[in-house]
Amino acid sequence: MDSLSFRIVNSKNMLRYIIIVSLLFNVCCGYIIFFKTDVCQKIIYKIGFGENPSMVNKRKIEFRCIQGWENTLYKMNVDADIVFFGNSITYESNFQQVFPDLKIVNMGCNKDIIDDLINRAFMIKSVHPKKIFVMGGINNFNATPLDEFKIKYETLVDSIRIYNPGANIFLQSILPVNPTKGVGTIYVDCVNKIKDANEIIENISRNNNCTYIDLFSAYQVNDTLPQKYTRDGLHLYPKYYDIWADVIKPFVE
Amino acid sequence: MDSLSFRIVNSKNMLRYIIIVSLLFNVCCGYIIFFKTDVCQKIIYKIGFGENPSMVNKRKIEFRCIQGWENTLYKMNVDADIVFFGNSITYESNFQQVFPDLKIVNMGCNKDIIDDLINRAFMIKSVHPKKIFVMGGINNFNATPLDEFKIKYETLVDSIRIYNPGANIFLQSILPVNPTKGVGTIYVDCVNKIKDANEIIENISRNNNCTYIDLFSAYQVNDTLPQKYTRDGLHLYPKYYDIWADVIKPFVE
Repeated sequence: MDSLSFRIVNSKNMLRYIIIVSLLFNVCCGYIIFFKTDVCQKIIYKIGFGENPSMVNKRKIEFRCIQGWENTLYKMNVDADIVFFGNSITYESNFQQVFPDLKIVNMGCNKDIIDDLINRAFMIKSVHPKKIFVMGGINNFNATPLDEFKIKYETLVDSIRIYNPGANIFLQSILPVNPTKGVGTIYVDCVNKIKDANEIIENISRNNNCTYIDLFSAYQVNDTLPQKYTRDGLHLYPKYYDIWADVIKPFVE
Repeated sequence: MDSLSFRIVNSKNMLRYIIIVSLLFNVCCGYIIFFKTDVCQKIIYKIGFGENPSMVNKRKIEFRCIQGWENTLYKMNVDADIVFFGNSITYESNFQQVFPDLKIVNMGCNKDIIDDLINRAFMIKSVHPKKIFVMGGINNFNATPLDEFKIKYETLVDSIRIYNPGANIFLQSILPVNPTKGVGTIYVDCVNKIKDANEIIENISRNNNCTYIDLFSAYQVNDTLPQKYTRDGLHLYPKYYDIWADVIKPFVE
């Protein structure tokens, strides 16, 4: 073999070694990515199958705290008149102050999407409420098609009913948003969709022996939430919960 | 160029392309593994620096539920006589039944390690308790060196005190385990270590104006938990909470 051929073959061998090492490294990385993370399940979810693995994982992690929350209430031997069940908009309410003669339990949880509400619907029974006021759906609403919204909301109502067969269930409409302010801006394309969702909630109420409460109309001006009511386009300033209290008063008492 | 040289050069080019693609793939995989997962932080944690990223992430995810739990209690306007604060062993207790004339709130949470208890110590203040009974430390105890245990337990007591400056704090000893049964078996090397940890808790009580309650002695036979008391080597059968109730009775009333 002459000197040139030798150099070519030698450098070819070197390339071969590099490629083998590189391919082995690829296989290791691929193994870690696909089996040690939830990339696989995320791809399955993205193409329209399976549940969002981050959500499933999150719900698993949260569940022991929800159990603790339920257990605390259960062991306090409370007989509630009303449970308010929902996301941060419910969390920030304080209807116990407005209706001091009733035993009211606030079960709001920040950032809850409908899946989260379904996940913890079981906890309502811990206080044996006579009435359950539900508000949910605005979190992740922009990313939720209305047919999916309908299915999930029905599942939520079923879950609440199963655990509380004797309670009266009140489904409160989604509030309007202000799409020019704070987090409200992510709902800029949802102004009319919220009205459609509320029609769906009203229909679900009718078909499931629940009472629909239209809060949307009490707050909206041109189908949106006036700036003065809201700190971020989505959440109410405390004093504007009075409008809510006025609307539900006939159902509460 | 003759035919042989051409083939060598050509195959060399082909190898070059493969190696470039392979290296690019390596870079992408490396990027995903190091920046889109917590591998980096896990390595830092393994070599003794930083906090366990899984724990940090878990606590972040759980926090909104803990907030909801706290908010529910706060808005119920409860003035508690006693809060029982701890892990699943507290969760499974029902001292409200034993002391029906007192307002008792069970704040047990399954699987809580001391870090978790520190994380949610703020929630105790929601019910303005006169007395706080704490039990914690057995979860992850086998993997926790005693000096670390001491630091964390002191932090826990500080956290409880900061949020509840007027309350009396009672630190209850860790219970003995049965290392031949169920989950108790993972504590097979901890029989004496539990006694040492209880001495640490007793010292912390003395130095922090808390009251130490020795439950260990009330349950132990040869430093372990007799089989008949425990369903899994760690948790008590409901009826054997009576022993606990007898020990704490003088402090409760």
